[in-house]
Amino acid sequence: MTKVQVFVSLRESVVDPQGIATKDALHKLGFDEVGNVRIGKMIELDLAGTNSEIETRVHEMCNALLVNKVIENYRFEIEEVAGK
Amino acid sequence: MTKVQVFVSLRESVVDPQGIATKDALHKLGFDEVGNVRIGKMIELDLAGTNSEIETRVHEMCNALLVNKVIENYRFEIEEVAGK
Repeated sequence: MTKVQVFVSLRESVVDPQGIATKDALHKLGFDEVGNVRIGKMIELDLAGTNSEIETRVHEMCNALLVNKVIENYRFEIEEVAGK
Repeated sequence: MTKVQVFVSLRESVVDPQGIATKDALHKLGFDEVGNVRIGKMIELDLAGTNSEIETRVHEMCNALLVNKVIENYRFEIEEVAGK
């Protein structure tokens, strides 16, 4: 099994209310050095297959289900599981 | 400004219903090679300060607001913004 981490973030042009709320909360707690805050998703998948198969399939999964490409971007990292 | 990415994931022992639902949906779409799926958060912060100040402050932010340490783990990466 190979572990893949998919990082999904809102496009720059899309307003992120959750990020704005988090920034305001951090300021209220005294973290005044915080500028912009954006909240995204991290999806960890355990996958079977070779690295090149996995790369193709993860793009397919992102397009089919994991990512809303109208408002979101994604990138992913493939890492071998120790002991394989 | 320095960009920091905080990755928050559920502890291994905590059930992740969102991950299970995502796994089931991927299987229904024909992605049968998918094993375990876990969903976490990625929080991107723009911060002022030196790297060592930032490291201390991000730990404080995670403890104060960003992470529920009872059920979640976190790690973060500090990256310089290009052109600084």
